[in-house]
Amino acid sequence: MSKRIRQEDIAKELGLSINTVSLALKNSSRINEETRSKVQQVAKALNYIPNSIARSLVQKKTDVIGFILPKMTNPVQIETAQQMERKLLTSGYNMMLMTTDSDKNYESQALDILLSRQVDGIFLFPTNKHNQDKIKSIRSAGIPLVLLSGGRYKPSSDAVYMNQFSGAYQATEHLAKLGYREIGFITGGAANVEKFDGYQAVLRDRQLEFREELVARVSHFSYEQGYKAASKLMANGPVRAVLASSDYLALGALRWCRERGLRVPEDVALIGFDDLEAAEYAEVPLTSVTYKGEELTTKAVSLMFRLIEEQERMTSKEPECIEINPTLSIRKSCGAI
Amino acid sequence: MSKRIRQEDIAKELGLSINTVSLALKNSSRINEETRSKVQQVAKALNYIPNSIARSLVQKKTDVIGFILPKMTNPVQIETAQQMERKLLTSGYNMMLMTTDSDKNYESQALDILLSRQVDGIFLFPTNKHNQDKIKSIRSAGIPLVLLSGGRYKPSSDAVYMNQFSGAYQATEHLAKLGYREIGFITGGAANVEKFDGYQAVLRDRQLEFREELVARVSHFSYEQGYKAASKLMANGPVRAVLASSDYLALGALRWCRERGLRVPEDVALIGFDDLEAAEYAEVPLTSVTYKGEELTTKAVSLMFRLIEEQERMTSKEPECIEINPTLSIRKSCGAI
Repeated sequence: MSKRIRQEDIAKELGLSINTVSLALKNSSRINEETRSKVQQVAKALNYIPNSIARSLVQKKTDVIGFILPKMTNPVQIETAQQMERKLLTSGYNMMLMTTDSDKNYESQALDILLSRQVDGIFLFPTNKHNQDKIKSIRSAGIPLVLLSGGRYKPSSDAVYMNQFSGAYQATEHLAKLGYREIGFITGGAANVEKFDGYQAVLRDRQLEFREELVARVSHFSYEQGYKAASKLMANGPVRAVLASSDYLALGALRWCRERGLRVPEDVALIGFDDLEAAEYAEVPLTSVTYKGEELTTKAVSLMFRLIEEQERMTSKEPECIEINPTLSIRKSCGAI
Repeated sequence: MSKRIRQEDIAKELGLSINTVSLALKNSSRINEETRSKVQQVAKALNYIPNSIARSLVQKKTDVIGFILPKMTNPVQIETAQQMERKLLTSGYNMMLMTTDSDKNYESQALDILLSRQVDGIFLFPTNKHNQDKIKSIRSAGIPLVLLSGGRYKPSSDAVYMNQFSGAYQATEHLAKLGYREIGFITGGAANVEKFDGYQAVLRDRQLEFREELVARVSHFSYEQGYKAASKLMANGPVRAVLASSDYLALGALRWCRERGLRVPEDVALIGFDDLEAAEYAEVPLTSVTYKGEELTTKAVSLMFRLIEEQERMTSKEPECIEINPTLSIRKSCGAI
């Protein structure tokens, strides 16, 4: 448990009086500019949260909850946000949403802005471990912050998240059990490390060879990127089974296969991730890993309300982590039915 | 131009002194509860904006812009929000998003919350004309508010919007020119009145009969609703041409047709709205009305920045309205190619 940073800590760090630090943080002209800027830099580096914000957050309810996610155009995350908002509204809370574009600095900025707007709590889809220290210090200040992903490391605050490793493991294992020895993977960068780990774990567990040329990396989750990934993966002939880390990627790959006269699932078995409506209604209904949004949002909202009530005690406890296991929705595209 | 409501106006309305009104608005215990509640009710009814908020908004830049839309799960609106956010970030602004679920009261609440959080301006996808008076009074207070839909009535603030009437007109006319005399329409309630008007205008202009049984109304824009709408529309045999007011609806209808052995476009010609990636990558690539998001967001952001600069002068001018005409992306589903 990291302790909350106070003005005393900044003063000690710089060998200044608390009074000087306090004035410098208020940007008072009584302190020379060099000192002011040094104090403010250290405050930022230590993730100092001004007393006024911490106090108003603890004492004054604003009935507004912040929500931070990487991209609005990620259908699973935005659906999660929408469900969360509906649940918060029923309890008299409004939600304010900001995005980070998976950027460390934007994530940090969004946290600062929501804190200064005095929200009662924050939900955050973090990108990697970028702002772990800042998140810890927000929690130490008694401000409820619930993370919505995790699993690969000890979360720095309370968290409710989908076990993406398990989702990828189940999907890859399903293909392996159907007899496929060569399984391709279309993956979307940093945010997908857990899924990639799940895919690789099945290969290890079943003594299947990992081959770099069976992995296609894309910049974002779109039909177009899936189409291009399939063309790259299958440049030297069809890969008999492919797991894509989103439904849009899988549907783009499906289109590429059809244009080349490759039948799904007879020639290429396909599995996606997210289980969107687009997967269910595709020309070949798509087998997909189901993101259990309803369960996730219900648990996340109830954890948030508990933290708001227990604010005082929260900081003395270890963060609570609730993991949700996805399931596999089996349809025609993987060849099992 | 409606003038800005001041405490004087509330005092006059109720025959009270300005001092009493001022204290009542601060919820001071020096004023009895009955009077306080009466003053607060009238303030609300007149859309009074406290001086402190108006002043701080005019004087103190917070570099945060609010964005209000009906539903996060509307792909066009959320894509607009995402593009807008990127453009604002490049200019050093952060965006805060709230939704209304197309509800008059939630819309009003979201406006209040963003104002009290002192944003520098607000973008709003309004639902109908719900909060016109409130919107007018926000503008009169010198707070930049840009509406993102309109066209059927004189907007109550500055506005940049897609001409949905023209989009529906072009699509319906395209089908009529291809020789279809019987054109069905799948529509999504109140928000779609403009599209419905455009559809009906073509029927009138071409002396085609309007038949209520050719219209299917849905509760929201999903594949499932499109599937059900098609089954209702075509209960007594195929309708030879159908315009759907969203791509998801059209793709749901496409699925229904395929399951019944109806070929698109040979047996049923289909056109959607929005021109999403899902339309382009569908099994039968979908003709669709293109929502020009890039043009809309560019113009909306530049209008917002102009309003922020000209705050003082803005209130004395008529609202500025910029209309954007959509185009039709012609693909295989309508039978033209």
